[in-house]
Amino acid sequence: MEKELKKLSGSLLPSIEHEIRTVVARVQTPETEELHYMLAYHLGWVGEGAGAGGKRIRPLLVLLTTGAAGGQWEHALPAAVAVELLHNFSLIHDDIEDHSPLRRGRPTLWKQWGIPQAINSGDTMFTLANTAILELEKSADSSIALLAAKAFQETTLALTVGQYLDIAFESRSDLTTDDYWNMIGGKTASLIGTCTRIGALVAGCNETAQNTYQEFGVSLGLAFQIQDDWLGIWGDSNLTGKSAESDLISGKKTLPVLYGLSKKDEFARRWAAGDIQPLDVPELAQLLDSEGAKAYTQERVNYYTNRAISRLHQTNPHGDYGQALIELTELLLNRKS
Amino acid sequence: MEKELKKLSGSLLPSIEHEIRTVVARVQTPETEELHYMLAYHLGWVGEGAGAGGKRIRPLLVLLTTGAAGGQWEHALPAAVAVELLHNFSLIHDDIEDHSPLRRGRPTLWKQWGIPQAINSGDTMFTLANTAILELEKSADSSIALLAAKAFQETTLALTVGQYLDIAFESRSDLTTDDYWNMIGGKTASLIGTCTRIGALVAGCNETAQNTYQEFGVSLGLAFQIQDDWLGIWGDSNLTGKSAESDLISGKKTLPVLYGLSKKDEFARRWAAGDIQPLDVPELAQLLDSEGAKAYTQERVNYYTNRAISRLHQTNPHGDYGQALIELTELLLNRKS
Repeated sequence: MEKELKKLSGSLLPSIEHEIRTVVARVQTPETEELHYMLAYHLGWVGEGAGAGGKRIRPLLVLLTTGAAGGQWEHALPAAVAVELLHNFSLIHDDIEDHSPLRRGRPTLWKQWGIPQAINSGDTMFTLANTAILELEKSADSSIALLAAKAFQETTLALTVGQYLDIAFESRSDLTTDDYWNMIGGKTASLIGTCTRIGALVAGCNETAQNTYQEFGVSLGLAFQIQDDWLGIWGDSNLTGKSAESDLISGKKTLPVLYGLSKKDEFARRWAAGDIQPLDVPELAQLLDSEGAKAYTQERVNYYTNRAISRLHQTNPHGDYGQALIELTELLLNRKS
Repeated sequence: MEKELKKLSGSLLPSIEHEIRTVVARVQTPETEELHYMLAYHLGWVGEGAGAGGKRIRPLLVLLTTGAAGGQWEHALPAAVAVELLHNFSLIHDDIEDHSPLRRGRPTLWKQWGIPQAINSGDTMFTLANTAILELEKSADSSIALLAAKAFQETTLALTVGQYLDIAFESRSDLTTDDYWNMIGGKTASLIGTCTRIGALVAGCNETAQNTYQEFGVSLGLAFQIQDDWLGIWGDSNLTGKSAESDLISGKKTLPVLYGLSKKDEFARRWAAGDIQPLDVPELAQLLDSEGAKAYTQERVNYYTNRAISRLHQTNPHGDYGQALIELTELLLNRKS
């Protein structure tokens, strides 16, 4: 299984990591050792629990797309660095905004260094991302660098707008599934779509092909996120023994929850009453199911999964990179937990 | 006095404001009215105390430089917007990091909307700044847009590094004046230098002239900031009646304070003992003076003032815009409070 993906990841991932380190090293001076350390800690390179820096899925998508579209993946490395740094900037700030104490099993940056330095470290990571994308000028050319930088800023704006909605939704009880699509489109799917768009752009694809690659990425991001929402309630671990980790306990406004709320029936009443305990989880999950949320969510997963796969095949991905991209897509869309 | 500056500001400031509004309107959708309102509030357009949005000195410097260097100021408008939005992004985050309740006499964004939305509004403002600078592609051309975007990211990095140092310094007692230059260079002077550099770049100046304009801006920024430090202790209002607003009370590590600390004499002992009251201010200001901090600070103000003026004349500023730029420089360097 995933033969090409394994083989290519073996050469791409070390290159990605090397390039990220090179960019982050720009803040490594005698006066700013600690700032550099904070970024390196968040990226999983140093400190207790080092190694937990994330899977680098987004940069991998950029590089595999460039290869699958017939380009040289090395030319897209600055963009791969940029998307990963942008993603990590958003995690640093989200963790402060959500008051999350843990990220990938380790204390979050703000927990370790306080809110002021964590905000500023996020800003530094964001700036390094913006610097990286402009370096496409050297590896590709200046018109590609400008187009990529524009697509990159578009997605960053979508990210901050999505995060605004996410925070605003916490205090609202009148949400619908429409609100979900606005938020999740900005927070998750937009960046994945930009990864595949920029990958295609660097490969020299025309506008139409770039759009198809972007639609592939957006659909992939949506399918992945909605599946995550499904698993957060009906995944094995959330019904058997680990109910405390269910999204029903955290109060997250996921797609099934918003669907349930929009029905204004028994689930909505129970949700509004608050104080959901681990023991209530199986019953509430069952209630959501009987009100149609499970089937609706599964239908949306299937829809975006099919759309992602159909768009990907439409791009006619080339050779080993194309095969690896198909494998990565299937891996992301077929997880069980 | 300031005849040309007054005349030109009358036409440039409304254009600047119009362009900033156009860029910020990108987040004005039915779903994100509140996000747009937060940005508009910070920029002084709406809410109680509207009108207090800052003096727009940085965008004015960009446009006057373009005009003084023989270019069309209209071409530099995207850069003028970008520097103002970047400056305001940094203020939003600084206010959270410094726990400041007031900005320009009004409640800060985080005080009004909470830390999560304030962080994210700052990120949105930052993104809009990054978007704006790329729009030089349309008003100037793509090579100018790329060079400007790079200079812009350089200064943003300097800004976040300077802010890291500023926060880190709060808990350090072993600071020297060297630390001051590292911090203030990044936090204040770098952006002013980028304003004048990009202004010259858009006018089509060569690298050497861009460098001279940048040195003018950096020197102007340093002279202005050090003068601010001087006034914060020896300014009329801080010795007579308003001692509570003295920088000696707030504990700010300004240049005179760091000079005093480096002497490791009576002032340093009093500072380390903490708890400085308004009644102590005149005595401590006198102590700093007798230990040489006042003369040293004044000497640095003079040095950078002369350097700014000499670099400005070296660029041989043209016509009315040149005259207005000279007037703005003199206005910034000759303030009394």
